Amino acid sequence: MKKSLVALAALAVAGVASAQSSVTLFGVVDASISSYSSTSRDLHGATLLNPFYLNQGSVKVSRRELANSGYNSSRLGFRGTEDLGGGLAASFWLEAPIKNDDGSEGVATFNRRSTVSLSGGFGEVRLGRDYTPTFWNNTVFDPFGTNGVGTNLIQTAAGDFGHPTRASNTIGYFLPPNLGGFYGQLQYGFSEKTKYSPGLATPDVANNSRTGRNIAGRFGYANGPLDVAVAYGSSTVGDQFYVGTTTKINTLNLGASYDFGPVKLFGEVSKSKNKVDYEVTPFAGGRPDVDLTGYLLGVTVPVGAGLIRASYSHVKYDNNAPVVLFAPEVADPKANKLALGYVHNLSKRTALYATIARVSNKNGAALTVGGPAFISNAVFTPKNSTGYDFGIRHAF
Amino acid sequence: MKKSLVALAALAVAGVASAQSSVTLFGVVDASISSYSSTSRDLHGATLLNPFYLNQGSVKVSRRELANSGYNSSRLGFRGTEDLGGGLAASFWLEAPIKNDDGSEGVATFNRRSTVSLSGGFGEVRLGRDYTPTFWNNTVFDPFGTNGVGTNLIQTAAGDFGHPTRASNTIGYFLPPNLGGFYGQLQYGFSEKTKYSPGLATPDVANNSRTGRNIAGRFGYANGPLDVAVAYGSSTVGDQFYVGTTTKINTLNLGASYDFGPVKLFGEVSKSKNKVDYEVTPFAGGRPDVDLTGYLLGVTVPVGAGLIRASYSHVKYDNNAPVVLFAPEVADPKANKLALGYVHNLSKRTALYATIARVSNKNGAALTVGGPAFISNAVFTPKNSTGYDFGIRHAF
Amino acid sequence: MKKSLVALAALAVAGVASAQSSVTLFGVVDASISSYSSTSRDLHGATLLNPFYLNQGSVKVSRRELANSGYNSSRLGFRGTEDLGGGLAASFWLEAPIKNDDGSEGVATFNRRSTVSLSGGFGEVRLGRDYTPTFWNNTVFDPFGTNGVGTNLIQTAAGDFGHPTRASNTIGYFLPPNLGGFYGQLQYGFSEKTKYSPGLATPDVANNSRTGRNIAGRFGYANGPLDVAVAYGSSTVGDQFYVGTTTKINTLNLGASYDFGPVKLFGEVSKSKNKVDYEVTPFAGGRPDVDLTGYLLGVTVPVGAGLIRASYSHVKYDNNAPVVLFAPEVADPKANKLALGYVHNLSKRTALYATIARVSNKNGAALTVGGPAFISNAVFTPKNSTGYDFGIRHAF
Repeated sequence: MKKSLVALAALAVAGVASAQSSVTLFGVVDASISSYSSTSRDLHGATLLNPFYLNQGSVKVSRRELANSGYNSSRLGFRGTEDLGGGLAASFWLEAPIKNDDGSEGVATFNRRSTVSLSGGFGEVRLGRDYTPTFWNNTVFDPFGTNGVGTNLIQTAAGDFGHPTRASNTIGYFLPPNLGGFYGQLQYGFSEKTKYSPGLATPDVANNSRTGRNIAGRFGYANGPLDVAVAYGSSTVGDQFYVGTTTKINTLNLGASYDFGPVKLFGEVSKSKNKVDYEVTPFAGGRPDVDLTGYLLGVTVPVGAGLIRASYSHVKYDNNAPVVLFAPEVADPKANKLALGYVHNLSKRTALYATIARVSNKNGAALTVGGPAFISNAVFTPKNSTGYDFGIRHAF
Repeated sequence: MKKSLVALAALAVAGVASAQSSVTLFGVVDASISSYSSTSRDLHGATLLNPFYLNQGSVKVSRRELANSGYNSSRLGFRGTEDLGGGLAASFWLEAPIKNDDGSEGVATFNRRSTVSLSGGFGEVRLGRDYTPTFWNNTVFDPFGTNGVGTNLIQTAAGDFGHPTRASNTIGYFLPPNLGGFYGQLQYGFSEKTKYSPGLATPDVANNSRTGRNIAGRFGYANGPLDVAVAYGSSTVGDQFYVGTTTKINTLNLGASYDFGPVKLFGEVSKSKNKVDYEVTPFAGGRPDVDLTGYLLGVTVPVGAGLIRASYSHVKYDNNAPVVLFAPEVADPKANKLALGYVHNLSKRTALYATIARVSNKNGAALTVGGPAFISNAVFTPKNSTGYDFGIRHAF
Repeated sequence: MKKSLVALAALAVAGVASAQSSVTLFGVVDASISSYSSTSRDLHGATLLNPFYLNQGSVKVSRRELANSGYNSSRLGFRGTEDLGGGLAASFWLEAPIKNDDGSEGVATFNRRSTVSLSGGFGEVRLGRDYTPTFWNNTVFDPFGTNGVGTNLIQTAAGDFGHPTRASNTIGYFLPPNLGGFYGQLQYGFSEKTKYSPGLATPDVANNSRTGRNIAGRFGYANGPLDVAVAYGSSTVGDQFYVGTTTKINTLNLGASYDFGPVKLFGEVSKSKNKVDYEVTPFAGGRPDVDLTGYLLGVTVPVGAGLIRASYSHVKYDNNAPVVLFAPEVADPKANKLALGYVHNLSKRTALYATIARVSNKNGAALTVGGPAFISNAVFTPKNSTGYDFGIRHAF
């Protein structure tokens, strides 16, 4: 006898009556043979700076590994929806990242997404940990979906810059789906910091801190072959009551895709600002704003059961004052990336894929395609970085 | 084709033949906007004690957050039962706590409950980690089910006092369900400490330690509108061979509820004792027993699809000697709490809820409704604490 | 209405179309009352070596506990297979170890096995974390399946010796099943170490390290009552560029079983070598190879719904030079073990079991049946070790 796995509400502790319901188990297991290699700038004349290294030329750091998530992020999740009647529905989504190459991460966290929602004609109210609106533009309009060595530089640089992919403790609102192609969302993430009133005098107390607060929104239009969306997000990444500064990462981006049939084009422009607000007078050596701007151009071409993917992305850091963020250059650091790939679908759920990518840095930018970092960034700065993924993605 | 998720016994390593079976996946995703605020006693004249704070009045510490488990504990679990024939059954229950507000805890542990059982006409023998019998009285007879800001003070104080909610490595026995309303359970939890024979001379060896041992039982009667139960538990929380002391937390409680229809009444009395047994002569400054007594009165009133909930709870610490546990008071510390709430059921599985609560401390008691603690309890002691939860509970 | 838990491919982020599929949830919950006891050699005249202990005789260390995995390893897993047509199939297997005695480990890792496979007429290519080929012989030809106090000494000693049970980041190949009883597999596990080119001068950099690399294979023949297999594995457990040594654990083993019907016989021979390769000249005090040899004889006898199990295993350490690995003996350390057990099957999924075992050490060998270790192995060396498991195994 073959029985089904049924989901029952179990609230024995609370004594609440239980009801039977549906739950969807889903996941992705993606594994690839991946290789990463970065070459540093030459070190001629930099001997004194270099206790680790006797050679005066450039250094190459490389690694080959069995990796996960080269095409889609490996994951395991549980989700379900309950029809409450009258157009109202309750739903949940719990999704864990998994590391299937070495098994070191199971369903230890649901930090990919963990939400509970109430939805109806008014739209959807969603509570929990969710993707940031600005991240959606980075990934939806990237032919490589921000996975593997092909990930666009806007997303790669965003990570170091402090622009979050996800936010915890959020209240989200989503427009209903029946607006003639228009869609949108708002998101507020609590900082959850303890507040003392009156404030404490001691400097090492994170008082009145807003660190962790996220405010963001995204609005778009998708109809037929066109999809276009604009997003804005402001993340408070530092808040020091004592020195009187609040640091925010503010990001504005705009992405679009158009499916011509034989080819689909992708594009995105993005600007992030590392902004310091001074509540008192700026302290000595006060750091001015830093801007990170970038753009992305992409294309996908269906070929039978396969899909060719290509993208070019570019980022630039604007240091708006003589502050040593990327010494010793004074020119603005910048980088560009070229990625090329092919996906062969064995079915809707299973695909083989191959991607190659190369990053070129200028003026001290230090981005790579992933993989190992140099031991000391102060000495070795990656000039070029290349890599490939060759793998299989299986979804369930 | 829509296939079912079927559960198959998989014992490939051991070569055991496998059989198909049913498994139930269940869970709760509960999220709330919660706020906590505690006000300390005035600090007039306490300047020297207070390096953190310049003000001489009272201090308020507060936090607002997206929280989980305000109405029911967020969880995800797997359980199933196999009919072995002849009235015998085998079953398992694996239940994980989850943190859906920030996704930081997935199915990392099964420390809510993880048991395997054999049951029949004789009752049930259950092995593993399970709730303690005394906890059942605290939660079953609390209109707020020991969740959220409404949690009764007996349970709140029990945590600090060392009275466990769950016990690991237990053997449990449960009476069969056909005893005319009578029910009962016994629980023994192994300490699992290593024993040296003969004992070692070195003092820092936890030798012959019984720390972690739990012995408990609960007996009750539930028939029609009445439910009444008494429970006793003894937990060994410290055992020092070298100084010759064994510390136990012994708890005796009695709870009851009566459902009149329009209203349901709840009540509980509880007494916990922190008891130190001296195998040798008491060392200097030996600490005498400390008692924690408490009572709870509660009521729920069904209103259509909703339920009004209210409770009043009180606890008192009896310091049986001039020992400085809650300086500088000499009178017995005590606290009381008033909680009021409303639950609106959108379905059996989904509910909206709101709860407000206030704790008042006297003579140095330092209980709160939850949320942030003061930086230094030696300086700031909470006098009053208030909080609210406003959230949604979705079960599956 | 009772709905099924259905599994849907969910690739919302990547925009991939999803397909419905089947997933199998499976697991084992095994709990036992287990006891372990080890007795040390006498310490007459060893006072100076013994700051912990005043007595001059032998010391006994013991523990009784509620344990897990006495008969089969407790686990929870997800797996599934997709028919890709044309004889091709994709599949995944994610299996977590669980600790059901105290609930401390849920589905935190999938480090029992986490793989994705592509299989067809050519066999199976499997990527991820998997069992090592040499481990299969240790467990398949052990009447106790390397679980509980009955685990054979080859496997017990292998753990300390560095011979891995599983390997991460592997590419595996398995022969197809239609080869007239012949079966086989090859496994390569990436070391995933970062490589610097040219190499760095600093000694504390793990440069060009091959630590973590695994290369192994297994070939066998199973037909009717006979099953026989040979396996070889080489694991690089240390690689020091600076001192110029590479340490490998190389294991060769051969196992067989023959089912006569009333009795089934088991046997295995195994040899592991801890081998140090010197790239430069051996440093002073260079350690020669150490060998670990062992054999196992086992039998199982079906008795109605039950199964009697017995095994005898023996291991010996060959120190090929006067190196102090097991002071103060100069003779080769060796140990043997006798295990006896009975399994009573209540169903295919549920069984009660009992096992007793005893290990005897000679010449400084220090193996036990499990459980607590002595505080200081330099002082206390286990001479004899006995233990029992009495438990229940429930699979789903």
